[in-house]
Amino acid sequence: MAPDEFEAALRAIGAERYHVHHPFHHLLHGGKLSKPQVQAWALNRYYYQACIPAKDASLLARLPTTALRREWRRRLEDHDGSGDAAGGVERWLALTDGLGIDRDYVVSLAGLLPGTRFAVDAYVHFVRERSVLEAIASSLTEMFSTDIIRERVSGMLANYDFVSEQTLAYFKPRLTQAPADVQFALGYVKEHADTVEKQQLCLAALRFKCDLLWAQLDALHFAYVEPALPPPGAYRP
Amino acid sequence: MAPDEFEAALRAIGAERYHVHHPFHHLLHGGKLSKPQVQAWALNRYYYQACIPAKDASLLARLPTTALRREWRRRLEDHDGSGDAAGGVERWLALTDGLGIDRDYVVSLAGLLPGTRFAVDAYVHFVRERSVLEAIASSLTEMFSTDIIRERVSGMLANYDFVSEQTLAYFKPRLTQAPADVQFALGYVKEHADTVEKQQLCLAALRFKCDLLWAQLDALHFAYVEPALPPPGAYRP
Repeated sequence: MAPDEFEAALRAIGAERYHVHHPFHHLLHGGKLSKPQVQAWALNRYYYQACIPAKDASLLARLPTTALRREWRRRLEDHDGSGDAAGGVERWLALTDGLGIDRDYVVSLAGLLPGTRFAVDAYVHFVRERSVLEAIASSLTEMFSTDIIRERVSGMLANYDFVSEQTLAYFKPRLTQAPADVQFALGYVKEHADTVEKQQLCLAALRFKCDLLWAQLDALHFAYVEPALPPPGAYRP
Repeated sequence: MAPDEFEAALRAIGAERYHVHHPFHHLLHGGKLSKPQVQAWALNRYYYQACIPAKDASLLARLPTTALRREWRRRLEDHDGSGDAAGGVERWLALTDGLGIDRDYVVSLAGLLPGTRFAVDAYVHFVRERSVLEAIASSLTEMFSTDIIRERVSGMLANYDFVSEQTLAYFKPRLTQAPADVQFALGYVKEHADTVEKQQLCLAALRFKCDLLWAQLDALHFAYVEPALPPPGAYRP
């Protein structure tokens, strides 16, 4: 595939598999969830947020040049903060605080759905074990994230009196960080996937990443919406 | 905890969390599933069966003595077969054959639920990364398996005209293999978990294992029973 054709194939995966199409997302931004259901979402998604710097650090450790490591280190700063500036993980806790979930309980992961844990851990393992090219390709769901964030934030602000611009502060910086991430990662992948085999590996990496985002919403939907059967030990509203 | 008290604590985890209590299991042995739903179960569970020898080999590679390795090698023989005798993986394929699912499709994993993949891979990673003691403790769900197998086999034979003793041949040897496995593994764990911390790690390992069996049925139930929303790319009856 020519680079543009390859990019189109990457984008087609998002059009089919990105979790913007999941029914739980529609319920969330459409105002159809109760506060406890939104709490369950925020509580579970915390584990995803908290593991992003771990997967980025594990990739950073395998990058071969100063230029690549400086580029990827920016992601750690985005998520873990820098100086007095809070990062994404801390801003996510502002959301769980705002939703009234005890912070120690969130951070303890005691109420986490096993389905969330397995999906997120699969991502960390993937980035640790696969090639640098595949690991970078798996980050490309950020190509699709600005739309879902805009929809989520505007929908939640309009529909839930228990969220505010302040509690949703996680998302605003992501609208500029994600496109910057994508500009580098997509360029890298288009340049380095220079055989059909490598292109196929990148496409598979992006499908895998879409699947693990989707599986997290499956687990939430099953446990808290329909049939609403949280597994033993998980958070019960 | 004294050894017997510790064993009771292990058994209590099964009483609460073993997947014999999952609604999907009740539907399965109670004859409430359609043939396509049973196919989806067999197709997904194939991946679990196929990965059991991988996790056992990864533990075997870390066992320090001939005696321990001989004991654990028996599990590989049970699952991968020996001489002309088929092992558990092959017998599971007799089930998917009997249910009319194309064997190449099953083995390709093309229709696998991501939730199944993440849960099973979590098990393989756990056994690879945790201590030998925790890895052995995680096998102790076999303490609870004879009941679920008896219930499953008798229920499925009574309720589905598309299964037979022959297609369910996977299960019969498990009724003698599992208790032999447990006799060793439970003895090992009771002997080697000689501090409170080690006992707690063993209890956590068994909870983790119950959770990943449970999560597999959650994923099946969500995709094929209620709300019946298979994720993009997964098997569609």
